[in-house]
Amino acid sequence: MNKGMLIVVSGPSGVGKGTVLSKVFESDNNLAYSVSCTTRKPREGETDGVHYRFLTEKEFLENIAQNRMLEYTVYCDNYYGTDAQYVEKLRESGTDVVLEIETNGALNIISKCPDAVTVFIAPPSLEHLYLRLSGRATESRDVIEKRFIKAKEELARIDNYEYLVINDSVEKAAEDILAVLRAERIKKYNKNNFRGVLL
Amino acid sequence: MNKGMLIVVSGPSGVGKGTVLSKVFESDNNLAYSVSCTTRKPREGETDGVHYRFLTEKEFLENIAQNRMLEYTVYCDNYYGTDAQYVEKLRESGTDVVLEIETNGALNIISKCPDAVTVFIAPPSLEHLYLRLSGRATESRDVIEKRFIKAKEELARIDNYEYLVINDSVEKAAEDILAVLRAERIKKYNKNNFRGVLL
Repeated sequence: MNKGMLIVVSGPSGVGKGTVLSKVFESDNNLAYSVSCTTRKPREGETDGVHYRFLTEKEFLENIAQNRMLEYTVYCDNYYGTDAQYVEKLRESGTDVVLEIETNGALNIISKCPDAVTVFIAPPSLEHLYLRLSGRATESRDVIEKRFIKAKEELARIDNYEYLVINDSVEKAAEDILAVLRAERIKKYNKNNFRGVLL
Repeated sequence: MNKGMLIVVSGPSGVGKGTVLSKVFESDNNLAYSVSCTTRKPREGETDGVHYRFLTEKEFLENIAQNRMLEYTVYCDNYYGTDAQYVEKLRESGTDVVLEIETNGALNIISKCPDAVTVFIAPPSLEHLYLRLSGRATESRDVIEKRFIKAKEELARIDNYEYLVINDSVEKAAEDILAVLRAERIKKYNKNNFRGVLL
């Protein structure tokens, strides 16, 4: 059995990562979503252990101190991070694991796991992104501006990612990611599987 | 406009490269098949300029002498090669170009064009390949044995290729290659196209 791949997916707030990834998970059966830990407050409809593992700042800092985070970062005054052991267990079982993380965390992963597959989801335009962020009625004007500035910073980092997917259509973006997953499996797994055939 | 990619496809004689690639070309509109030059005799049903450009040995050697071949090799006592200018023109027009060549030629291309996408098509087993080669009634027992030995040599070189596609089903193998093409375009083209958005 092959060890599962690590797939890092980033993209600015408001780009529609969640919707695109939902479509991807509907069509791909060997994929697990790595539930991040965070200290931010749950939004309406978010469930602990499903969307995030919601931790207190004290709990999060303990995890860091015990070296249990694969990566972590501070984003808009909250901690976000990935439990290393949890991801490793999934990969050892042969499952490919998707980490949806922002660019600082992603850069940490890329340096620690050079074989990670890295995907950046970008909006078709900055205007498009601003409209999407403004449309989120739950956020104040101040938070929207903050997220938009952060988004532009993140977009400046696309060169650190191997694959750039443009979300001009959810279906197309999801199919793009499914093609990337299929191609990476052909690259990473088939040679291992084939060696037995030649013996 | 992006310059077209160079896609190198290899695989042993009898693996079914032609059938798989036909399926790929049916579904992909930005793809051109690079017609190789050869000094071997046309098989029944093969048309000059479509399956190969059939050259005399004198013509082929002149092309080599004039440095007009992107790669060439001798295989089963015949010359095979790729006209460099012909491929370059296609790529400059934005078309992705598929070169179906054997492993010696491919290794030359890989060293000259490190950004080439390399795909090796393998049979599900050696037995499977031998049966396929034996089933070709047009070939003598001697030629079959020669091709089988050559096939095993080629299979020993899969590590020089990025992608290994197993032809256990023509449909699946074609879809694998289509996914590779889509992923490589996402990798190579989208970033270029996106820079304009950020300006």
